[in-house]
Amino acid sequence: MDTQTYERRREALRARLAAEGLEGFLVAHAANRYYLTGFELHDPQCNESAGLLLVTRDGEWLLTDGRYRDAALRLLPEEAVFIYGSPKVPQVRGFLKDKCPGALGFEDSAISFRLHQDLSEGLMLRPCRNLVEDLRVVKDAVEIELVRRSCALNHAVFRRTESLLAEGRSEAEIAWDLEKLFRDKGAEGLAFPSIVAVDKNAALPHAIPGDTKVSDNCLVLVDMGCRLRGYCSDQTRTFWVGPRPTDHFLQAMERVREAQDAAIAAIRPGARARDAYLAARAVFDKYGVADRFTHGLGHGVGLETHEAPSAGAASEAVFAPGMVVTAEPGLYYPEWGGIRWEYMVLVTGDGCEVL
Amino acid sequence: MDTQTYERRREALRARLAAEGLEGFLVAHAANRYYLTGFELHDPQCNESAGLLLVTRDGEWLLTDGRYRDAALRLLPEEAVFIYGSPKVPQVRGFLKDKCPGALGFEDSAISFRLHQDLSEGLMLRPCRNLVEDLRVVKDAVEIELVRRSCALNHAVFRRTESLLAEGRSEAEIAWDLEKLFRDKGAEGLAFPSIVAVDKNAALPHAIPGDTKVSDNCLVLVDMGCRLRGYCSDQTRTFWVGPRPTDHFLQAMERVREAQDAAIAAIRPGARARDAYLAARAVFDKYGVADRFTHGLGHGVGLETHEAPSAGAASEAVFAPGMVVTAEPGLYYPEWGGIRWEYMVLVTGDGCEVL
Repeated sequence: MDTQTYERRREALRARLAAEGLEGFLVAHAANRYYLTGFELHDPQCNESAGLLLVTRDGEWLLTDGRYRDAALRLLPEEAVFIYGSPKVPQVRGFLKDKCPGALGFEDSAISFRLHQDLSEGLMLRPCRNLVEDLRVVKDAVEIELVRRSCALNHAVFRRTESLLAEGRSEAEIAWDLEKLFRDKGAEGLAFPSIVAVDKNAALPHAIPGDTKVSDNCLVLVDMGCRLRGYCSDQTRTFWVGPRPTDHFLQAMERVREAQDAAIAAIRPGARARDAYLAARAVFDKYGVADRFTHGLGHGVGLETHEAPSAGAASEAVFAPGMVVTAEPGLYYPEWGGIRWEYMVLVTGDGCEVL
Repeated sequence: MDTQTYERRREALRARLAAEGLEGFLVAHAANRYYLTGFELHDPQCNESAGLLLVTRDGEWLLTDGRYRDAALRLLPEEAVFIYGSPKVPQVRGFLKDKCPGALGFEDSAISFRLHQDLSEGLMLRPCRNLVEDLRVVKDAVEIELVRRSCALNHAVFRRTESLLAEGRSEAEIAWDLEKLFRDKGAEGLAFPSIVAVDKNAALPHAIPGDTKVSDNCLVLVDMGCRLRGYCSDQTRTFWVGPRPTDHFLQAMERVREAQDAAIAAIRPGARARDAYLAARAVFDKYGVADRFTHGLGHGVGLETHEAPSAGAASEAVFAPGMVVTAEPGLYYPEWGGIRWEYMVLVTGDGCEVL
């Protein structure tokens, strides 16, 4: 990503600061920090930060520790990088106070109770929600291209998947083969732990690949995606292995695909995400199986596997061009398994495109 | 881990609740939740929880969503599992209020400002620090065995490492080979992204494996570890590839190993972690190179790669039998590279053991 892209995004954030009456905004959530600067998409651990970004109406500063000095200086000029030592909090607080004595917004779900308490002395902290997420939800041209590539790699690995589903091979072996394919083809890693679930295991939306083996007639649900140049992909297919798919497999598959078509037909600019969910649900209702559809229709995908917009019963999102959302209806039967089929869908100027 | 182990750990937490005057404790940090129940060592994303654990003086309940129902019921009886739907917060708050109307402790660095605000209405929330971490810092016999196995696998992969450092191979290729070795030998994954750093790249404590290739005479720093049955390992070696190690390489290596020996000699029950750091630093001081030692001596390792006790200049930890800490002094020279050597050290009844 070029410098101008990050500058453009920070300008968009600044416009929001002005509208919200904030002098500055403190970015702690890793994906937001990366989106605005290119700095470290991941923190070392969920409880260990690689750094904070301060954006004020007239400047930006990356606050980080010595380990990341070099990485920071590749992205920002020296005067925009503040290296803190130990103890970190008083140094960070002092720096923020100096650069932003006025109202300082922060991400209310990314700052811990403790950090808020530690920083609040002497700072005018203001809790904010979705200031950066609202920008990220609409992908720009470069991002759409990157999501497209990540999804294309996902397709490429799916084309190789059926040949890996051989009798006697375990879910865990297959999952590892798939991961190696992603990595060998250039992915940084998986977007999330792959699901490879045989028969009844497919009835668990959170199945973990284990010792269960592919048999000569079974279903295998594969839900997987990769991270490529920062961007995630996420797709699901359900396969039948062997010559004799069962009637309940074929019937559930038809219903899931019909529900998916109905959902995708409802994805266009100005439509409510909730209505796309309801369109899928209406198909299942028609067949009297809506109680087997136990989750939402989907979620946004980008720098994070799960991000806005969410497309479920409680969603208030309205689709706009440049949004990317999954359409992943499923039907689950503890007695024999489950069917899920998942596409990534890009909202376009006048409808949508399945990626 | 057997049921009794988790029960014993929850009893230890209950003893702390009584001492702190708390009626209950809400566990949100994934590694703490796993330590007390075996439920989900990782959240799906840092901003997406797999569930919350409530421990009161006379019971415990796992609060999670439908995806994890099956996983929860494998660990706890049905009456101890509460499945929340959407919207989550009012349901969680109502449940907590019902089970714990009195003082409810929470992890002040694991609960976000927003979640605290959303839950505080009607609950007597009390910020707490390290209630579970203080238990985890001393490993029990089962944990020591698991850390030992994880470290043994790390050693096994290090024995294969030198043969992978062949002229013309890139850091990234080597890192991927090492990861495949870990996985093929049974690890769930890496404990952290491996560092494979050639020459000057080794001067960056946060080097990312890239296109730099091994030459016929170069140094390669490898910092890696795996996660095996939940437990992490973390070790570093610095290799010379080729027949002519430079004098500065050999000299820095000797000093690092001498500092490491001094640090390890200072690790025993009752000793301060800070003094082990100072012992390493004193060796570098003697040679006038202490300014090249830019980080602490080490950190605890267990369910997380970085956990208590920390062993640096600001550490207030005192060693006790059952603690596991890294000893990883290093010297960094932007002109030619860096040397780091890292062992995992177990504090024993009368001294320590290098794992």
